[in-house]
Amino acid sequence: MEQNRVRVTVWNEFRHEKKHEVVAKVYPEGMHTVIAESLRSTAGFDVRTATLDEPEHGLSGEVLAGTDVLTWWGHMAHGEVQDAVVERVRQAVVVLHSGHGSKVFSRLLGTNCSLRWREAGERERLWNLAPGHEITEGIGDYFELPQTEMYGERFDIPEPDKLIFVSWFEGGEVFRSGCVWERGNGRIFYFRPGHETYPIYYNQDVLRVIANAARWAARRIDSATENCPCIKDPIERIGRANENFGL
Amino acid sequence: MEQNRVRVTVWNEFRHEKKHEVVAKVYPEGMHTVIAESLRSTAGFDVRTATLDEPEHGLSGEVLAGTDVLTWWGHMAHGEVQDAVVERVRQAVVVLHSGHGSKVFSRLLGTNCSLRWREAGERERLWNLAPGHEITEGIGDYFELPQTEMYGERFDIPEPDKLIFVSWFEGGEVFRSGCVWERGNGRIFYFRPGHETYPIYYNQDVLRVIANAARWAARRIDSATENCPCIKDPIERIGRANENFGL
Amino acid sequence: MEQNRVRVTVWNEFRHEKKHEVVAKVYPEGMHTVIAESLRSTAGFDVRTATLDEPEHGLSGEVLAGTDVLTWWGHMAHGEVQDAVVERVRQAVVVLHSGHGSKVFSRLLGTNCSLRWREAGERERLWNLAPGHEITEGIGDYFELPQTEMYGERFDIPEPDKLIFVSWFEGGEVFRSGCVWERGNGRIFYFRPGHETYPIYYNQDVLRVIANAARWAARRIDSATENCPCIKDPIERIGRANENFGL
Amino acid sequence: MEQNRVRVTVWNEFRHEKKHEVVAKVYPEGMHTVIAESLRSTAGFDVRTATLDEPEHGLSGEVLAGTDVLTWWGHMAHGEVQDAVVERVRQAVVVLHSGHGSKVFSRLLGTNCSLRWREAGERERLWNLAPGHEITEGIGDYFELPQTEMYGERFDIPEPDKLIFVSWFEGGEVFRSGCVWERGNGRIFYFRPGHETYPIYYNQDVLRVIANAARWAARRIDSATENCPCIKDPIERIGRANENFGL
Repeated sequence: MEQNRVRVTVWNEFRHEKKHEVVAKVYPEGMHTVIAESLRSTAGFDVRTATLDEPEHGLSGEVLAGTDVLTWWGHMAHGEVQDAVVERVRQAVVVLHSGHGSKVFSRLLGTNCSLRWREAGERERLWNLAPGHEITEGIGDYFELPQTEMYGERFDIPEPDKLIFVSWFEGGEVFRSGCVWERGNGRIFYFRPGHETYPIYYNQDVLRVIANAARWAARRIDSATENCPCIKDPIERIGRANENFGL
Repeated sequence: MEQNRVRVTVWNEFRHEKKHEVVAKVYPEGMHTVIAESLRSTAGFDVRTATLDEPEHGLSGEVLAGTDVLTWWGHMAHGEVQDAVVERVRQAVVVLHSGHGSKVFSRLLGTNCSLRWREAGERERLWNLAPGHEITEGIGDYFELPQTEMYGERFDIPEPDKLIFVSWFEGGEVFRSGCVWERGNGRIFYFRPGHETYPIYYNQDVLRVIANAARWAARRIDSATENCPCIKDPIERIGRANENFGL
Repeated sequence: MEQNRVRVTVWNEFRHEKKHEVVAKVYPEGMHTVIAESLRSTAGFDVRTATLDEPEHGLSGEVLAGTDVLTWWGHMAHGEVQDAVVERVRQAVVVLHSGHGSKVFSRLLGTNCSLRWREAGERERLWNLAPGHEITEGIGDYFELPQTEMYGERFDIPEPDKLIFVSWFEGGEVFRSGCVWERGNGRIFYFRPGHETYPIYYNQDVLRVIANAARWAARRIDSATENCPCIKDPIERIGRANENFGL
Repeated sequence: MEQNRVRVTVWNEFRHEKKHEVVAKVYPEGMHTVIAESLRSTAGFDVRTATLDEPEHGLSGEVLAGTDVLTWWGHMAHGEVQDAVVERVRQAVVVLHSGHGSKVFSRLLGTNCSLRWREAGERERLWNLAPGHEITEGIGDYFELPQTEMYGERFDIPEPDKLIFVSWFEGGEVFRSGCVWERGNGRIFYFRPGHETYPIYYNQDVLRVIANAARWAARRIDSATENCPCIKDPIERIGRANENFGL
């Protein structure tokens, strides 16, 4: 049904692609374009993109109101994201790779989200710890990325509600590469794979997980959680019960 | 042993007590003084206090470095707390009552921490869901507060790591009144009881829980989590394993 | 799509209805019939029923293989459920009311699942703590049952993965009335409402939650978790790395 | 203080040591003796041992009543452990290595606790994910075991309350090697290291973690959770409130 299609906004910092030739070769139109195209063609979602250098970073209140789930990739310009936009992003988010260092992620989780890292083109193997979960649909016991940047523990995050993937790295580290949390009425998924020079977002397992996660995280209700209503009239009568206590 | 005494800093907004006579009657020297005195005399902690109107709200880097656990009460002036101080408070915190609306709490949890409320002097009964936990030591199946402000669900918080107390209110609501989380290497406890006009911080069960919580939450290590170290030299040799893949 | 309809087996002990006239008046054909009929007509599920006194309690391997999710109600004859059948029930289960004392529930959770109780026809109000969750779809801030048996804390369960409902009782207790856990690849939901004499399973909110829960808990994969496979051939070459250590 | 010493019972199947010469060489008096001696001399605990072939497996009600925490190692004779003893072990337990397959562990967790394994003498590196937790006191970012049996994911366990260690294996797998849960009023820690032929229980990091875990898991209260008390007299008066509803 048209009206039930998941509406995804793929957000990308989109700076590396414009500044570094090696990145432009991998993602000539930006990695958001590659991710968006896959979510459209494979998953059939209603997809738009937004980038840092657009007004309001492409994330006006209107855009967010029409977004069921956001994917977030940033790296070299985390600090340029306006706080007002960060505060606005309180809905379902799939945070990708170096998005671990974004204001959006840290604001939602409440931690520094720090980790250890190394760029050595090493192999990563992502083990599937949650074979019955929506996010791992179609994924086997594990999948591999032949050359990646390493992210290692300790990852400074709150204990995930559920741990979906744990990575093994050739150089000796491990990492919680797929984690879910909830905030407000929204769902959050962090997914480690992705880098500006390795062609990670052409990998079919990676794209499948992003699509699964977007479907799972898409917001289900549109209820704000900002206000503290005063409930003047109690549901039950107050006072008579106090007689029990002789007050 | 002297050197192992828990070092607590009791923070209080300390405005209601100075502005409202009815509050001043209950807490003539501020509610921080009452809490601090109890933690000193009963629990034997090394206690200092700090308040909003002191420079840096009394929470200089030096003070925080010498603090194992902070208790936090604020209400009418949450917005006046400087962001720089909020960012500094990344250690163990016991958040009290209306501190649910503080920047510190929201920053650590990542949610709005909203709730429903009513001031009608109704009875509250806090049920102990975690009889084996350090925080409930000395507390029975439940304890009661004869007259309190009501806080009701839905409380906009991340799922607690463990739920310690659930409150029953005379007017018909329930509330997750004792909850624990972890952030960074620090422990957080939210404890609902407390109000500026009801004499809640003279209640022995309430004071006992605060002391238990301070002991439990006191930070155990002093390790920062801000940095993302680059680990250039892998622990295991990289590259040879790639031969398996014919790369 | 026909082939995607959730296949539910509604299990009922079905003894009270046959022995006690007052119960037979409320549920003349057994409470399983009422629940099953609602799941069929309202939710459109593919529903069958099974009861204690059928061979293998109606839960042969074949029946379970064709079941995506089981609902479980028992009370006076928990001890008569054969252990072999209990061991077989390792899939998605919605455990109802006095099913808290069943072998199935205790075996899956690993606790005694004890609680406090009282039959006094008092009012219960179930607060919705998870408005964005699949299980609460269509449920508002709370719903009420005018006359129920009371179940009170402390409920001896493992910390739920997510707490969905908390009940307020007129007599002063609270209870975690809706809780989810996962075991193996299956999902479990415990839902407190229900009783043999109060007509709880005619309540539309209760029926809606049971339907939502059945849809949410329906098993997604059919993979056993009994075996410990020996993986003789490592994925990565072993031994050469040991050279690092001079072994 | 003498009376506050943690009372540990180190339980060992103690069959491999008697049947296999290669094991007897590593643990001539049984691995329980090595673990017990370390807990006595290093941690100062009050330690006794118990083994499968003793009456009641050395775990009479009296022994368990005088035990604050049990450590459990079994492998080749899990099936010989009497169910009556399994039911009795509902207190704090530190489950070691192949104890993952024990009745005690499966009964407490509610899952099959299956995993993948390989005996190839490969290297294991245990990453510390919880540097602020009592169990990792004195442990750095990671520690290594030069030659171990491999245990790999997916480990069929309920989501841990907190994940303490994740292992990297030379052959390409990862494993949740340190996990905590709670059941009843007791704490459970699963710790992967240990094997009958590799001399794992002489490793100082391993012994330190076992001691830390025993201290952390030692039961704090002695309250049974088997019974469901009927609370005939409500705390609050029932009935009058119903007037609100015109009943």
